[in-house]
Amino acid sequence: MKILFLGDVVGNIGTKMIKQYLPILKRDYKPQLTIVNGENATSFGRGINRKVYKGIMDAGADVITLGNHAWNNEEIFDFIDETKKLVRPLNFPGKDVPGNGYTIINVNGKKVAVINLQGRIFMDPIDDPFRMIDELVSKLHSQVDNIFVDFHAETTSEKQVMAMYLDGRISAMVGTHTHVQTNDNRVLKKGTAFMTDAGMCGPTDGVLGMKYENIIHRFLTQRPTRFEVEENGGGIVSGCIIDIDNHIMKAKSIKKILISPDHPYQG
Amino acid sequence: MKILFLGDVVGNIGTKMIKQYLPILKRDYKPQLTIVNGENATSFGRGINRKVYKGIMDAGADVITLGNHAWNNEEIFDFIDETKKLVRPLNFPGKDVPGNGYTIINVNGKKVAVINLQGRIFMDPIDDPFRMIDELVSKLHSQVDNIFVDFHAETTSEKQVMAMYLDGRISAMVGTHTHVQTNDNRVLKKGTAFMTDAGMCGPTDGVLGMKYENIIHRFLTQRPTRFEVEENGGGIVSGCIIDIDNHIMKAKSIKKILISPDHPYQG
Amino acid sequence: MKILFLGDVVGNIGTKMIKQYLPILKRDYKPQLTIVNGENATSFGRGINRKVYKGIMDAGADVITLGNHAWNNEEIFDFIDETKKLVRPLNFPGKDVPGNGYTIINVNGKKVAVINLQGRIFMDPIDDPFRMIDELVSKLHSQVDNIFVDFHAETTSEKQVMAMYLDGRISAMVGTHTHVQTNDNRVLKKGTAFMTDAGMCGPTDGVLGMKYENIIHRFLTQRPTRFEVEENGGGIVSGCIIDIDNHIMKAKSIKKILISPDHPYQG
Amino acid sequence: MKILFLGDVVGNIGTKMIKQYLPILKRDYKPQLTIVNGENATSFGRGINRKVYKGIMDAGADVITLGNHAWNNEEIFDFIDETKKLVRPLNFPGKDVPGNGYTIINVNGKKVAVINLQGRIFMDPIDDPFRMIDELVSKLHSQVDNIFVDFHAETTSEKQVMAMYLDGRISAMVGTHTHVQTNDNRVLKKGTAFMTDAGMCGPTDGVLGMKYENIIHRFLTQRPTRFEVEENGGGIVSGCIIDIDNHIMKAKSIKKILISPDHPYQG
Ligand SMILES: [Fe+2]
Ligand SMILES: [Fe+2]
Ligand SMILES: [Fe+2]
Ligand SMILES: [Fe+2]
Ligand SMILES: [Fe+2]
Ligand SMILES: [Fe+2]
Ligand SMILES: [Fe+2]
Ligand SMILES: [Fe+2]
Repeated sequence: MKILFLGDVVGNIGTKMIKQYLPILKRDYKPQLTIVNGENATSFGRGINRKVYKGIMDAGADVITLGNHAWNNEEIFDFIDETKKLVRPLNFPGKDVPGNGYTIINVNGKKVAVINLQGRIFMDPIDDPFRMIDELVSKLHSQVDNIFVDFHAETTSEKQVMAMYLDGRISAMVGTHTHVQTNDNRVLKKGTAFMTDAGMCGPTDGVLGMKYENIIHRFLTQRPTRFEVEENGGGIVSGCIIDIDNHIMKAKSIKKILISPDHPYQG
Repeated sequence: MKILFLGDVVGNIGTKMIKQYLPILKRDYKPQLTIVNGENATSFGRGINRKVYKGIMDAGADVITLGNHAWNNEEIFDFIDETKKLVRPLNFPGKDVPGNGYTIINVNGKKVAVINLQGRIFMDPIDDPFRMIDELVSKLHSQVDNIFVDFHAETTSEKQVMAMYLDGRISAMVGTHTHVQTNDNRVLKKGTAFMTDAGMCGPTDGVLGMKYENIIHRFLTQRPTRFEVEENGGGIVSGCIIDIDNHIMKAKSIKKILISPDHPYQG
Repeated sequence: MKILFLGDVVGNIGTKMIKQYLPILKRDYKPQLTIVNGENATSFGRGINRKVYKGIMDAGADVITLGNHAWNNEEIFDFIDETKKLVRPLNFPGKDVPGNGYTIINVNGKKVAVINLQGRIFMDPIDDPFRMIDELVSKLHSQVDNIFVDFHAETTSEKQVMAMYLDGRISAMVGTHTHVQTNDNRVLKKGTAFMTDAGMCGPTDGVLGMKYENIIHRFLTQRPTRFEVEENGGGIVSGCIIDIDNHIMKAKSIKKILISPDHPYQG
Repeated sequence: MKILFLGDVVGNIGTKMIKQYLPILKRDYKPQLTIVNGENATSFGRGINRKVYKGIMDAGADVITLGNHAWNNEEIFDFIDETKKLVRPLNFPGKDVPGNGYTIINVNGKKVAVINLQGRIFMDPIDDPFRMIDELVSKLHSQVDNIFVDFHAETTSEKQVMAMYLDGRISAMVGTHTHVQTNDNRVLKKGTAFMTDAGMCGPTDGVLGMKYENIIHRFLTQRPTRFEVEENGGGIVSGCIIDIDNHIMKAKSIKKILISPDHPYQG
């Protein structure tokens, strides 16, 4: 089974790139399951809304994952409980957190759990991602055939130690949040596919998708600055394609996907 | 010479308390110089505007200091350069930072420098407060008779080490930012008056001036929450009165001021 | 019932002050229960050992609480499970955390739970203190007559919101960790006694108990510096005395205790 | 002119990999200048010492850069001022910081400045890297032909905005510190070669070079854990080769270098 994963979609250029390239990637790679991180998919780069959600699903996604910006556009509270295809981080605290931290998808008679998890180092103090994923994975082992985790975290250390913690227990873990693709895609010793960060789908000209002018003003002055999504210039598509053994919880390969003005898509 | 200092004024209850009690405190303590921290003085608790600035000055302040919220209400950029009585933290970086980091006030023929300085531990990475105050104090020693520093910082360690660093070189250093008055007012070994935090002037019922309902929602869910100033209940006035020797850069005493429903003003 | 609480004991001067003043405070205030925070009680200011533990207990403590430095002296693992009088923060994660997060003490036929809890803002990402204390307090309500919480946390906001969250459900919450006593001791609206920080018991001359020379070197250079406990100069004792109604979970009063060269003990 | 840069060397496996592969890389790529980040090069993964310094230089490095761990092995204070080939971050504060923040190397009659710079987001509050590099680059423009910057920083945002800030003013900027190579090597619009992180040279089996058992213990328990360098398993070499135009301050290309058990060297 093949899983296509694309990292954080940012703003209008991000959704445009998804609409243009997701159908082509699906045609060429023929994934049975397509997952897209949409935590920055609104036009202003924070959170998601119904229209953008529908746009990414219509382009070919089966599941959309989120991250620390999950709740930044309040419209999400209106529709997150209507669908099982929009997954927010598992480990937000509190009673009655809207939405779900994972979903189970039927793929050709196989069940695949797609989990969204969030880190804590240099991020908000939410519930322990290690304990929660440990408990959930144990529970899911009797229910599903494969498990995919989008671990939304800041540091390379938290992502790598999580991947090794889950190695042999899940099919694949891909990191998101830093918006820069890492060059460390590999299958770990016990069979879990891993890369530290998938990278983003968004504007090439800004800083992680946001306008350079805003970001540099903030760094130079430390005064409050409104961050706006870069609306001009080229676009990038970042992610990976994972090949998973159908009968065991192991991956055969994980390959980077990167489309940008410097790396035009070649199929 | 006596200096009256009042900590962070928060929202409408804060400005109301200032208007009610500042005249009474001035009548009773007869300070020659009155300084108020106004970084949270707008009705929404962030930054300052012309109207609130004028209200605090009319109530009897000679200088208003600020802090990390200095720039949170954009109206400040319109009037900070019109007055020398509104002082923002000295160590914000960049060329042409609006306003000034200190001002010099004439008090009965004596010159007093009032400096606003901001810390960095668990705060934004602005310029080095230690080096900047060191250079400024050296420069001011030939120009002024007394120096007062409002050090706006989060941790007790940064505030205490700064006070000891400046001990004997300035008349007084009072901390602000945590909104809770500390019980450690004292004159340090070499003569500088010090207390870790003056406390705030604002609502008694909230959490540091903000509505409890908002703050607890944020702590329990880690989801974004709009923080609103508490508009109901009683008010508090917090600060200190410092007695400084007229001819040398030394303090004779520093006493806490605290007015609240539990501690009604007794003159 | 009266509870005497003393804040973080730091190094040799701290334990010396405890030995000198705890018997006097007990003689004068006649508390039925005495609690001391000992997270910095070793001679080097980090963690606790058998000898120091015994010294503080012999001086008159009934329970010793800890904090983020609980595990900094490895000897604790040898004896924490031998006693029920040494309490570490409730919300450290993991299976089989050594020791206990609370203890129940019999005081004249009444049962008092003493809980140690740790915050997360600007501290390590341990388990949710709000959820854990909520569950524990609910459980304890049928077992004990009074509940005391030492909440070891950095920020005034986390401490104040926690106190309001627990107001009416526990007898008293006192903050520790900043080593500076706050001037906000009060009984909250629903009856819980509270102050943001009890302050420390240790050297007066250093910065929070540590040598000034080390701390200023670190702040000026940002290079690694060995922090040593201040061994010279005077000592301070900080804490509070809480008067609790015997039959209901409410406090009658909470008063600051502060003994220092500037505030000699007057009984 | 070609510059070979290799990222953070970690522990004994790291220095062994350098000794094995640096001569081969130099033979095959024929760089005129070779720079290696050695901030974790001691056997315990923190700082550098004379022996390790000499080992990396003997293997073929022309300059060794450092980072936040620069000062973690005190032996550095004994020899950093003896050599101009060991460069520590430019923006450490304080008077008389040992060593230098940059060095100028003669390469075939051309002068190349090699600068080490450190970020501040989620790192210690040192001097402003933007202002300091801005001033240094302006000064160096009349003295050198090319400028290379190793920007040692945590976040992708600080590294990317710095690269865009310097674009067209320096030949190349390569990030270090996260120990994971990014897949975003490119020449920016105005001619500066850039990649967010070069990756590390060290053990493949640990977490960023350190033993998994230690790191996972820390994440699961939040109790203090001694971090040890991984001494077993394979090794990785990460870096890049940059081709710079000889006469102008522009790069022609930047290519990733990655040698690991999964990516055996193929020349
Ligand atoms: Fe994102
Ligand atoms: Fe994110
Ligand atoms: Fe404030
Ligand atoms: Fe503030
Ligand atoms: Fe402490
Ligand atoms: Fe502590
Ligand atoms: Fe490193
Ligand atoms: Fe580093």
